[in-house]
Amino acid sequence: MGPQGFRGVAGRLGVKGGGDDFAVVVSEVPARSAAVFTRSRFAGPSVELSRRDAPLQRSRGMVVISGNANVANGAVGAQDAAEVRGAVAGLAGVAPEELVVASTGVIGRRYPMERVREGIARLERPLPEADFGAAAAAIMTTDTRAKLVTVRCGDAVLTGIAKGVGMIEPDMATLLTFFFTDAELPADRLDALFRRVMDRTFNALSIDTDTSTSDTAAVFANGLAGPVDPGAFEQVLYACALRLVREIASDGEGASKLIEVRVTGARDTAQAKRVGKSVVNSPLVKTAVHGCDPNWGRVAMAIGKLDAESDIDPGRVRIRFGDIAMYPEEVTEAVLDEAAAYLGGSEVVIGVELGIGEGEFTVYGCDLTEGYVKINADYTT
Amino acid sequence: MGPQGFRGVAGRLGVKGGGDDFAVVVSEVPARSAAVFTRSRFAGPSVELSRRDAPLQRSRGMVVISGNANVANGAVGAQDAAEVRGAVAGLAGVAPEELVVASTGVIGRRYPMERVREGIARLERPLPEADFGAAAAAIMTTDTRAKLVTVRCGDAVLTGIAKGVGMIEPDMATLLTFFFTDAELPADRLDALFRRVMDRTFNALSIDTDTSTSDTAAVFANGLAGPVDPGAFEQVLYACALRLVREIASDGEGASKLIEVRVTGARDTAQAKRVGKSVVNSPLVKTAVHGCDPNWGRVAMAIGKLDAESDIDPGRVRIRFGDIAMYPEEVTEAVLDEAAAYLGGSEVVIGVELGIGEGEFTVYGCDLTEGYVKINADYTT
Repeated sequence: MGPQGFRGVAGRLGVKGGGDDFAVVVSEVPARSAAVFTRSRFAGPSVELSRRDAPLQRSRGMVVISGNANVANGAVGAQDAAEVRGAVAGLAGVAPEELVVASTGVIGRRYPMERVREGIARLERPLPEADFGAAAAAIMTTDTRAKLVTVRCGDAVLTGIAKGVGMIEPDMATLLTFFFTDAELPADRLDALFRRVMDRTFNALSIDTDTSTSDTAAVFANGLAGPVDPGAFEQVLYACALRLVREIASDGEGASKLIEVRVTGARDTAQAKRVGKSVVNSPLVKTAVHGCDPNWGRVAMAIGKLDAESDIDPGRVRIRFGDIAMYPEEVTEAVLDEAAAYLGGSEVVIGVELGIGEGEFTVYGCDLTEGYVKINADYTT
Repeated sequence: MGPQGFRGVAGRLGVKGGGDDFAVVVSEVPARSAAVFTRSRFAGPSVELSRRDAPLQRSRGMVVISGNANVANGAVGAQDAAEVRGAVAGLAGVAPEELVVASTGVIGRRYPMERVREGIARLERPLPEADFGAAAAAIMTTDTRAKLVTVRCGDAVLTGIAKGVGMIEPDMATLLTFFFTDAELPADRLDALFRRVMDRTFNALSIDTDTSTSDTAAVFANGLAGPVDPGAFEQVLYACALRLVREIASDGEGASKLIEVRVTGARDTAQAKRVGKSVVNSPLVKTAVHGCDPNWGRVAMAIGKLDAESDIDPGRVRIRFGDIAMYPEEVTEAVLDEAAAYLGGSEVVIGVELGIGEGEFTVYGCDLTEGYVKINADYTT
């Protein structure tokens, strides 16, 4: 059961190898919105169009094509993106600038525009009530399961969907994630709280250090359920986004485990985040977790390689796996066995205390497996 | 056939699971030296001792223990490193500060000092003539083959050895590499040219983005063959170091291919290096090369994710695989087939032209394979 007043459709245009590859979700009434996008220098025209109109803060919803990113296709790619957005806006009875357009998949190939035009022309009008589960499924590429979270906030409902399990180290944005709500919020508050929540959730996620050209995150609030307390809504949005982030990390390409790195005692939040990212991105830490090897020395290595962090003193650092202290304690064989068993679980928490100040940050990622290599050696993204 | 006047020994102390794990090479006469080290905040006491004495520029050679990095062992680790260096200095008849001490292997475990003491006490005195091949083999950990290069420079000879195939993205240094020569060079010239050569070779190498706590690189010049032209020596040292770097990249953990990324047309050298590192470190680029997938879009992604490089314009970027232009040309199926065949070779060159200025830099790395994951999920480093 999603928020009131959203219409939409999911379907197949024939862009992706199989399954639905097209989704639209649009509010029936005008809405407030906030959005953030990839900072890639190779951002595609879908991102450029959406980013241009985002400051209007009146997007009603989104249209997504999956299986083709429409990136690096020059002027013709820009025309294709504008045509898709225009056609869907016409179908939904909204202005083009009220739609976020997003695209995900292989880079450097044009959309099959004849099939895209025919597919959009065939859609039911007016659009039926939105099926958020179908939309979450239609935007997937190498994801193995759809990511959909629905939570309540007073009388209002918030539904979030997300996709993306590879080429993921979002930078001020995420791969693709959309939040729909019937809550009523002032536009400036919505924008500020959305950015804060994204910083602590999607921007704290890294599957493989590679930042997509297509990252897009947006929230659409149509107000049909009446006003909500912005503070309470921020809490709910945070919980919703964090659940999506954890699902994405668990479903990371080839991943068998979620890794959470909790950094405390840093000089400030930014330092805590740099340390956390260095640990969660280290292929040697990721493979050790995969192999259930309680090799805390690799965590120390990943902290130490940040040579610019001159205030990090190995003598004050503490490293834990879950609740098990690994450094600087003398670690017995029994403790190593206990830590190895802990690493066998499906969620692993690595604790790093720097002993400098009060800054803290938690980042999310996954282990590195032979499955990741198989998927990416064989799959053209 | 190595340079004149070096004595040494390789042997087994019982630190590593099997094979030689101990090597000493020392000049018979006083020598000039230059050295660079890891910038890791978790650098071990071997690095700290060696770094402290490096400014004296009179190291005669090195002692290496492989299989145990002696890192993160607190004060007792520092004592152990000093004891090993002192004992070997006594054996070789030199002052302790004339020896670079290095250690590589697992982090957070003490040396088995009784075995180390007994092993050193058993060694032949005086030391026999150095066997550089045996030394190169004794310093290996997960390496599958020893890295040894010998070149001539006029009447002088230069021999370089290196080890290290994982936890490798050297930062102002390398994992372990040592150069021995009987050339005579002024100390200040030796230091300057050594740093220049390291910047273009070992600092241009990345296997897996992880920087070791033990990186050490040094050159020892005992002058017995008389003076050489420093410019000519720099050329020879560069060629020698580059061959070692290419061998290390080819032997990267699990690697099946050497990847060379040649960046041209950058604003400056530093930008060219950042772009090259971003491409060579991208797991999606590495897996595409492994799978012979001519997926230039992942190269574009890896360039684009450097969001701070605001002068990189996708409209001016050119991407090549070998001599095959991939972007922004329209790529036909025939070209894709040709590129896939090219990627099947054992050495892959990715060309990136940025179209901004004259800066250029070449970086070296390897593909990412299931073998890397297997080695590092199972092996305690």
